[in-house]
Amino acid sequence: MNAEILTIGDEILIGQITNTNSVWIAQQLNLIGISVNYITSIGDNEQQILEALLAANKRADFVFITGGLGPTKDDITKKVLANYFKTSLQINNDVLNDVTRFFAIRNKEVSEINKNQALVPIGCTVIRNYQGTAPAMWLEKDKSVFISMPGVPFEMKALMTEQILPKIKANYKLPVIYHKTILTQGIGESALAEKIEGWESNLAQKNIKLAYLPQPGIVRLRLSIIGENENQLKQLIQNEIDELQKLISDYIYGFENYGEEQPTLHEIVAALLIKANKTISLAESCTGGYIASLFTSIPGISKVFLGSFVPYSNEAKSQLVGVSNETLQKHGAVSQQCVNELAVNTLNKFNSDYCIAVSGVAGPDGGTSDKPLGFVWIAIANKNNCKEYQFQFGDNRSRNIIMTSNAALNLLRKELLG
Amino acid sequence: MNAEILTIGDEILIGQITNTNSVWIAQQLNLIGISVNYITSIGDNEQQILEALLAANKRADFVFITGGLGPTKDDITKKVLANYFKTSLQINNDVLNDVTRFFAIRNKEVSEINKNQALVPIGCTVIRNYQGTAPAMWLEKDKSVFISMPGVPFEMKALMTEQILPKIKANYKLPVIYHKTILTQGIGESALAEKIEGWESNLAQKNIKLAYLPQPGIVRLRLSIIGENENQLKQLIQNEIDELQKLISDYIYGFENYGEEQPTLHEIVAALLIKANKTISLAESCTGGYIASLFTSIPGISKVFLGSFVPYSNEAKSQLVGVSNETLQKHGAVSQQCVNELAVNTLNKFNSDYCIAVSGVAGPDGGTSDKPLGFVWIAIANKNNCKEYQFQFGDNRSRNIIMTSNAALNLLRKELLG
Repeated sequence: MNAEILTIGDEILIGQITNTNSVWIAQQLNLIGISVNYITSIGDNEQQILEALLAANKRADFVFITGGLGPTKDDITKKVLANYFKTSLQINNDVLNDVTRFFAIRNKEVSEINKNQALVPIGCTVIRNYQGTAPAMWLEKDKSVFISMPGVPFEMKALMTEQILPKIKANYKLPVIYHKTILTQGIGESALAEKIEGWESNLAQKNIKLAYLPQPGIVRLRLSIIGENENQLKQLIQNEIDELQKLISDYIYGFENYGEEQPTLHEIVAALLIKANKTISLAESCTGGYIASLFTSIPGISKVFLGSFVPYSNEAKSQLVGVSNETLQKHGAVSQQCVNELAVNTLNKFNSDYCIAVSGVAGPDGGTSDKPLGFVWIAIANKNNCKEYQFQFGDNRSRNIIMTSNAALNLLRKELLG
Repeated sequence: MNAEILTIGDEILIGQITNTNSVWIAQQLNLIGISVNYITSIGDNEQQILEALLAANKRADFVFITGGLGPTKDDITKKVLANYFKTSLQINNDVLNDVTRFFAIRNKEVSEINKNQALVPIGCTVIRNYQGTAPAMWLEKDKSVFISMPGVPFEMKALMTEQILPKIKANYKLPVIYHKTILTQGIGESALAEKIEGWESNLAQKNIKLAYLPQPGIVRLRLSIIGENENQLKQLIQNEIDELQKLISDYIYGFENYGEEQPTLHEIVAALLIKANKTISLAESCTGGYIASLFTSIPGISKVFLGSFVPYSNEAKSQLVGVSNETLQKHGAVSQQCVNELAVNTLNKFNSDYCIAVSGVAGPDGGTSDKPLGFVWIAIANKNNCKEYQFQFGDNRSRNIIMTSNAALNLLRKELLG
C-alpha cells in the first residue's frame, strides 16, 4: 500500500512555516507499513488542488490532505473536494452539534461563518474532531481513499492517532516495514562507502535498502526492509549489522531504532558518564563553548558536568588555566603540549574524573603551512593519564567547530567504554 | 515568474528529516518576487523523478531540485536528468579539479567514486560548489529552467546565495519587492501586537504587508511592499518604521535589509565591541556555554572575546570564580549577589572591559516557589560598576537558555550604547 501527502496552504509556499505535518504523517504511515511516495505542497488555489487530487488519484492507495478547512474565504478545500467528487456540500448535524458545543464551552456563540464548519461533501464519512471545529473527511474513488484533515498540528495528530490510523489498520492488510540506523563518527561518506562496498552490494538481493545520511563529522546509515513478520525482519537487519560491525566497528557510536527517540552523540556520552557516575570538565579553545552548550542542553546534566573553561586568548590559557609560557612560545596554542596542559590542569582545577581539551585553527583566518585551517588537537584526560590526538578538518569555521566537538565526544565515549 | 521546488530523497518520505531546504528556498524566491506554486518531495526513484520533472516542465518557469547528487549508488538525480534531457553524463574538468582540490586540502586522495562527482549532463551549465563536491547544474527546456543542487543545506544555501540567485536577478525581469525587518527583543508577540495595533491597521490600505516572525525572546517584524521603483518603496517603508520607532523604540535592537547579511543580536554586540575596541568575558551558569558559542561562531571574534567560565557546580563558582561561600549559602547560586560576584570576579580574572554573568533555573527540575522554572539573574559589569537584572522566563529548558542569552546580549548592547 502506498500513500501521498498533500498539504494545502499558502504559508508553506511562501516559506513562512516549515511543513512539519508531513514529516509526522510520513513517520506514522511508515510505521504501519504504508510507504509514502509523494509529498506535495500547494496553495489555496482551486486549479492546483484539482490537478493534485487527479494526479494522486492515479497513483495512490491513500491520499492524506491537510489544510484549507478553516472558516475563512481563503480556505477552499471542501468546496474543491465536492467539485472533484461531483457532489455538493451539506450540513452534517453531528458536526454542527460539535461546533456549537465547542463554542459553548468557551462561552461564545456560534457565528454563521463557524456554522459552515459543519458543511461536508455529501457521501463522505465524517471523522469528528474533538479538538477543534473542522472535522476530517474520508472519501473513496477508484481504489484511492482521500482523507482530508485540518492543518492545525495538534488537531490533525489527534484525528490520526485516535481515529484514522486505527480505522486503516482495522480495514486493510498492511505489510511490516522495519528500519534501523547505524550512527558513525570519524569517517566521511565516500571513505565509508569504499570500506563497506562489498557488504553493500549484497543488500539489494536481500531486498534491503541502504541510505547514507551525512552530517558534519557524522554519517548515519539507514537500513530498511519490507515484509510480513516483524521479528524476522528485525533478525535480517540485525544479521547485516553484525556483518557491518566487523568492517567499521571503530566508527560506530550508536543505533537508532525507528520510531524511538533518536540519540545524539553528546546524549550517549552523557548517559555513559551518568551511568558510571563520573564527572567531566572541559577546556574549549577552538570550539568556544560549543561542547559545553551541548552538554548543558541535557536536563539533569549537573549530576556529572562540573563546568568548563573557554580560554580563548593566550593570556587566559596561561593565567587562568596554567598553560606554561614556554609551551605557548615554543609550540603555540594549537599544539599537543598545549592541549595536554589544558586538559590536565582543567581536570585538576575542577577535580573531575575526565576532561576534554581542544585547540585548533577554526578559520577562516589564522592558517599557516604548518597548521592549516582545520588543524586541531584534542586531549582526553583522566586522573591517571592524558592522551592527545591530532585531526585535520576543513576550511569552514562552523563545520570545524562541529566536527571537532563530534570527534572529541567520540574519543571520550571510547575512553569511557575502555 | 513562478517556481516549483522538487526535493529528492527517501529520508523526507519516511519522515526521517524535515524538509527545511524547501522553506528556505521558498523564502528566498518570494523575497525576489518569484512565487512558488508547488513543493514536491519524492524518493530516489527514476520513474517518480521523471514524472515530477515532466509535470514541473509543463507548469513552472523555474524548477529548483535538491538532493540525490551524492557519490553513492542510491543517488540517481544526475542520471535521471540526463535521461530526461536525452543526453548523457560527461566529466567536467573544472569540477574534477574542484573535487581533487577539495580532497587535497584534506590530505586525501580522490577515489574513483568521488571522481564521478565531476560527471554532469552534456549541455548543462555547471555552477561550481566551493563547499562540497557536487556541483549545481542549470538546464533549460521549453521555457523552464531546471536547477539541480546538492541537498546538504549549507552547500545548497551557498550556491543559491552566491551564484544562483544573482544569476536569476541578472537575467530575468522580476518585480521589485522591498522588505525590511525590524528586530525586537524583550516583548512577546501578542503584547507587541497590542502595542502597535493602530499602526498595523493602517498598513493594508498602503499595500504594505506585515509578518510577525517570533523566536525565543525575539520577535522580528517584516514589512513588505511590491512595486517598480525601489527608492520609492524604500521611502514608503522607512516612513512606517519612523512611526513604529515612536511606539516601541525600547525593544528595537536592529534592522535587516533584504539582500544584506542578516545581523543577529550577538553579531550586533560583537560589532559594537570591536568598534569600541572593548574586550569581553563571560561567566555562564544556566546558559552553560551557549553565549560563548554564539560569540565564537563569529570569525575574528578573538580581537575582543577573551574567554568564558562555565562554573556549573557550586564548587566551581566558589573555587574557580571566587563567589563567596556566604553568598552561596545565604542567597543561593541563582541570586543577585551571586551574579554580581560572578561578573566582577570574572571581569577581573580576564582583565576584560565588560563581563556578562548569568545564573538561573533552566529546568525542567529545580524550580521552587521562590525561584520557579525560568527565574534568571543577569549581571553586566564594566570596570567601574556592575548592574544586575532579574527575569522570569518559561518552563522549557532550551527556550530558557536562548531567552536568557538574548536578554543578556541586549542588556550589554544597551550598556555599550550608553
